[in-house]
Amino acid sequence: MELSLTSGKKIACAADTSILEALKKAGIYLTSSCGGKGTCGKCKVLVKSGNVISKSRIKLSQDEIDKGYVLACKTFPAEDVIMDIPKESMLVVEGQVVTGKSKDLLALLHSTGTAIDPLTGRIVLALPLPTLDDNISDLERLRRELMSKGMGCLRVPFRFTQDLAKIVRKENWQVTLCTIHTEDCEEIIRITPGHKKTPQYGVAVDIGTTTVVVFLIDLTTGHLADVASTYNSQIRFGDDVITRIVHATEHNKLKELNHAVVSDINTALVAIRKAHHIDVESIDCFVVAGNTTMTHLFLGLDPEAIREEPYIPTANTFPLAFAGELGLKANPNIPVYAFPCVASYVGGDIVAGVLATQLHKKQELCIFIDIGTNGEIVIGNSEWLVSAACSAGPCFEGSGIKCGMRATEGAIENVTINRETLDVEIKIIGDNDTKPIGICGSGMIDAIAEMFLARIIDPKGKLQKEASSRVREGEDSLEFVIYSGEGRDLVLTEPDIENIIRAKAAIYAGFSTLLKEVGFTFNDIQKVYIAGGFGKFLDIEKAVMLGMLPELAKEKFQYMGNTSVTGAYLCLLSRNLRSEAEEIARRMTYVELSVSSSFMNEYISGLFIPHTNIDAFPGVKKLMEK
Amino acid sequence: MELSLTSGKKIACAADTSILEALKKAGIYLTSSCGGKGTCGKCKVLVKSGNVISKSRIKLSQDEIDKGYVLACKTFPAEDVIMDIPKESMLVVEGQVVTGKSKDLLALLHSTGTAIDPLTGRIVLALPLPTLDDNISDLERLRRELMSKGMGCLRVPFRFTQDLAKIVRKENWQVTLCTIHTEDCEEIIRITPGHKKTPQYGVAVDIGTTTVVVFLIDLTTGHLADVASTYNSQIRFGDDVITRIVHATEHNKLKELNHAVVSDINTALVAIRKAHHIDVESIDCFVVAGNTTMTHLFLGLDPEAIREEPYIPTANTFPLAFAGELGLKANPNIPVYAFPCVASYVGGDIVAGVLATQLHKKQELCIFIDIGTNGEIVIGNSEWLVSAACSAGPCFEGSGIKCGMRATEGAIENVTINRETLDVEIKIIGDNDTKPIGICGSGMIDAIAEMFLARIIDPKGKLQKEASSRVREGEDSLEFVIYSGEGRDLVLTEPDIENIIRAKAAIYAGFSTLLKEVGFTFNDIQKVYIAGGFGKFLDIEKAVMLGMLPELAKEKFQYMGNTSVTGAYLCLLSRNLRSEAEEIARRMTYVELSVSSSFMNEYISGLFIPHTNIDAFPGVKKLMEK
Repeated sequence: MELSLTSGKKIACAADTSILEALKKAGIYLTSSCGGKGTCGKCKVLVKSGNVISKSRIKLSQDEIDKGYVLACKTFPAEDVIMDIPKESMLVVEGQVVTGKSKDLLALLHSTGTAIDPLTGRIVLALPLPTLDDNISDLERLRRELMSKGMGCLRVPFRFTQDLAKIVRKENWQVTLCTIHTEDCEEIIRITPGHKKTPQYGVAVDIGTTTVVVFLIDLTTGHLADVASTYNSQIRFGDDVITRIVHATEHNKLKELNHAVVSDINTALVAIRKAHHIDVESIDCFVVAGNTTMTHLFLGLDPEAIREEPYIPTANTFPLAFAGELGLKANPNIPVYAFPCVASYVGGDIVAGVLATQLHKKQELCIFIDIGTNGEIVIGNSEWLVSAACSAGPCFEGSGIKCGMRATEGAIENVTINRETLDVEIKIIGDNDTKPIGICGSGMIDAIAEMFLARIIDPKGKLQKEASSRVREGEDSLEFVIYSGEGRDLVLTEPDIENIIRAKAAIYAGFSTLLKEVGFTFNDIQKVYIAGGFGKFLDIEKAVMLGMLPELAKEKFQYMGNTSVTGAYLCLLSRNLRSEAEEIARRMTYVELSVSSSFMNEYISGLFIPHTNIDAFPGVKKLMEK
Repeated sequence: MELSLTSGKKIACAADTSILEALKKAGIYLTSSCGGKGTCGKCKVLVKSGNVISKSRIKLSQDEIDKGYVLACKTFPAEDVIMDIPKESMLVVEGQVVTGKSKDLLALLHSTGTAIDPLTGRIVLALPLPTLDDNISDLERLRRELMSKGMGCLRVPFRFTQDLAKIVRKENWQVTLCTIHTEDCEEIIRITPGHKKTPQYGVAVDIGTTTVVVFLIDLTTGHLADVASTYNSQIRFGDDVITRIVHATEHNKLKELNHAVVSDINTALVAIRKAHHIDVESIDCFVVAGNTTMTHLFLGLDPEAIREEPYIPTANTFPLAFAGELGLKANPNIPVYAFPCVASYVGGDIVAGVLATQLHKKQELCIFIDIGTNGEIVIGNSEWLVSAACSAGPCFEGSGIKCGMRATEGAIENVTINRETLDVEIKIIGDNDTKPIGICGSGMIDAIAEMFLARIIDPKGKLQKEASSRVREGEDSLEFVIYSGEGRDLVLTEPDIENIIRAKAAIYAGFSTLLKEVGFTFNDIQKVYIAGGFGKFLDIEKAVMLGMLPELAKEKFQYMGNTSVTGAYLCLLSRNLRSEAEEIARRMTYVELSVSSSFMNEYISGLFIPHTNIDAFPGVKKLMEK
């Protein structure tokens, strides 16, 4: 059977092969956070003609079914099929979008005062030819040459000796070494014949609980070749880190979780490599940042003790691993550097975030908050760093929200509601003619703040049926129609709204409790760095209006995007910054908020918009009174 | 079908399984230097009753065939078989013989002034239990505890983190670490729960071109648990290192050679372990000494450049390898330390030999000679060390000699011929009632010297047919009957004698040429250390009479046995001595004899007994004149 895509591409697909699998084999990667089990509903495709057999329709609305949408993972062709892949189903490879991002990243790198000096180095050596009078062995010749160039300790893992004789002789005693610094030694990670002018790439990865983001970076220029992001397919075992630890330990499924995330990274990386025709051997190293549990699951470390008092990870700083040990699709000998973690609930993603903000070098008192599935908060400056964590849930990344999606092309990232006409204006990620396909975190924050000011919801988040014709009875609950299109309407349901309010309450409670613990108030804060997968755009005023962020002068806020992958980028390109990251992890202390009664009080007070204590939000109060 | 051994043991053997294979499966290891190809003739067994199908009879004499001998590797049972395994066919596990050897080795270790401090250490740690106030990670807890014990740099390979959480918790935070010192760091090679009082063994291996010797050593006491020796089954690809290098490179068979020697070591080690019920997990490390080519082949390093001018090995000092990388039957993470080599033709076996003699610490001028398939010579003292090599061939190890065998039980190690009656008296390795089954190197030297003095051979080594009734026409040439027994007669043939004379000529030429190169004469030498696989016994006077050794005062000679495995033993038990070995390899220089015309002249002069220049042997001259 044949699948004909509207792009013109034709793909063979056997009767017992799912459309998802057939597309994958043809190099077309769909989002599939449940791993092809038919439960996440992310791999929708539109069948335009041709009979298919669909074994599951979960997560498809009646309207979608009527239009011909099917789940690619559970659908098999019965004859030749003409079909279309909606953008929201594609595993994103960002293409041109990255040019701007690349410039920003390079500017950030330069702003740290560091030159490009990648994690792994390449050294080209022209060895003197051996003679009867200079007949030392190949390995000693290599060492002598390196010593003459001022290199001290050199570690040569045994495996590299086995082909050494052939390699040094292949291109007339010229060789290229690839090395990494470990335990006060340069360690060889690759020896190749000749002068390798081939491209050198590094991979920076943010392993979020919900989302995995992969950057492929040119190590010589610092340019971002491309970005791919996908849901962390561990989602199929549970939304949060605790459920996943339980799954890993009680069901003895550590390997399964490990394979899930490794295969997400592989899929994303292969998609980028293929799109840009980059050879697998051009990749020299990986830097991975994730929270402590994600880092453990990625490295295959037992996470059990993380969730039981006294909450002990196997490691906070990780010995260098190699791609081959972890099942990454790359040369098995290239190193994988995992960002050091601070404690069981403040991980390498936060260390990477601090590195990206350079908070650890600031004179003034700063706050950093990373809003992901967990919200982690760091307060401090060049003298001290204190961190804490609270659980926000995956809603801002689109998970658990009916029309939620990650901040990629087609996502509604900005919502304005005219307070008189109640007309809704939206901004979509992508070109001018991009059709909206879902709502990302920044869009949700906007929408709820605007709905609140327009009195479409009350301070508890309940939809007011009489307030607007856009409020309607949905399949299970009331919902608000943000966009009405040809495909399906994009809505926020009452459970969606409750979800988001709980998340924002946890974040605000985290802020205020940690500040109290260290003896400061919001007024002492000079700068608030906000990180998260909200895309390019987060309307701070709306986040304040929602009561997620404290009401401070607008110029004190700085939205930084995904600082976990940014930190990984910095670390990949600078050995100094790698040392700084390790220094940050060492310096940072951790405060356990869950044992604080103050946190629970703050959380409950935060379950209103903007807050039970409206006096903490004088600006919002004024707006409400209008 | 069933094989019944005269020991009473019964072994099942299918019709398509060779007797060799069936015995191996039952834990009975035969010598099989050709690897079961039916070409070495070493795996003879005696079939007493029952029909068998024998596919090859090469290397069996008509007499043996008549008596019922078959090659186990090429023989298959056609019905139940009653059979006997001659001692000479057994892979030797020495059993009680080692008690004396063990004492000698320990005495040698103590004489170096070194205490037992094995290559790999075990450290038992009782970690403080984690609490909410002391919640550092498992790995950091381990490091902190080691630092508090004064350990500096600790390298933890990534793979050891994966089970760390389980291991530390298994026996209430008590763990045993096994470590080895590499590149100024202690590197973890094993982490096990609890306080491991289990035995700790190390394996010392001498990889000779012809013979492989394996010692299993108790690392806590230094006692030798047992010894096994076997032919290096690379023999099937050629007798000397050059032929093997050619085979490895021109036929692309490096892997085959590598597997051959690794499997010899495995077979020997398994035989010892089974005989003494020692668990594989009790083995903590290997130390291997061999010549440069043998070390390369064992480690899987390309040996091609060793044989081509300017004769360059891949490495002379080898990064630590692990058992798993080399296919050794042991825990894959335990380290394998290969003795450093000096040059392409002076290897780790010679460095081990110098370590065993402690020549590198002597004030007086000494010579060390290791007589194996190659003869290597070291001259020097605590101030300087010069080495050279000459090719002796494998005859002293029994290879290429009709009734030759290694110096193990049943070997004739001493021969005396009454000059009047021409009666032959022999001494056999083993108990009083041990029957002779072959002739080892020391027996050959004795026999030829005695035959020369008794005028049974002339100075060129030609047998004098009329001299004795023991001289007879053999299958292909004249031969001298040393022992006439029930099984077969033990003889030295004329080609055997020529072989031995060529070997002794090469050794003597090596001595005298190297001495000349460094500007000394035999009279300057205070001590001559002789090493080789001659067994316990080598009659120096006979070796002088043969013209293999220079005629010096008897007390200047010291016979040391197999110093390669002795050096490996020392290195296994003392980290100081490991450093000394590395120091010896660094200090020793190498002189290439093959380019010296003097060497060829000396060699040709040495093709007489004792030497063309009889005046260099005044004592022998006097004896001859008697």
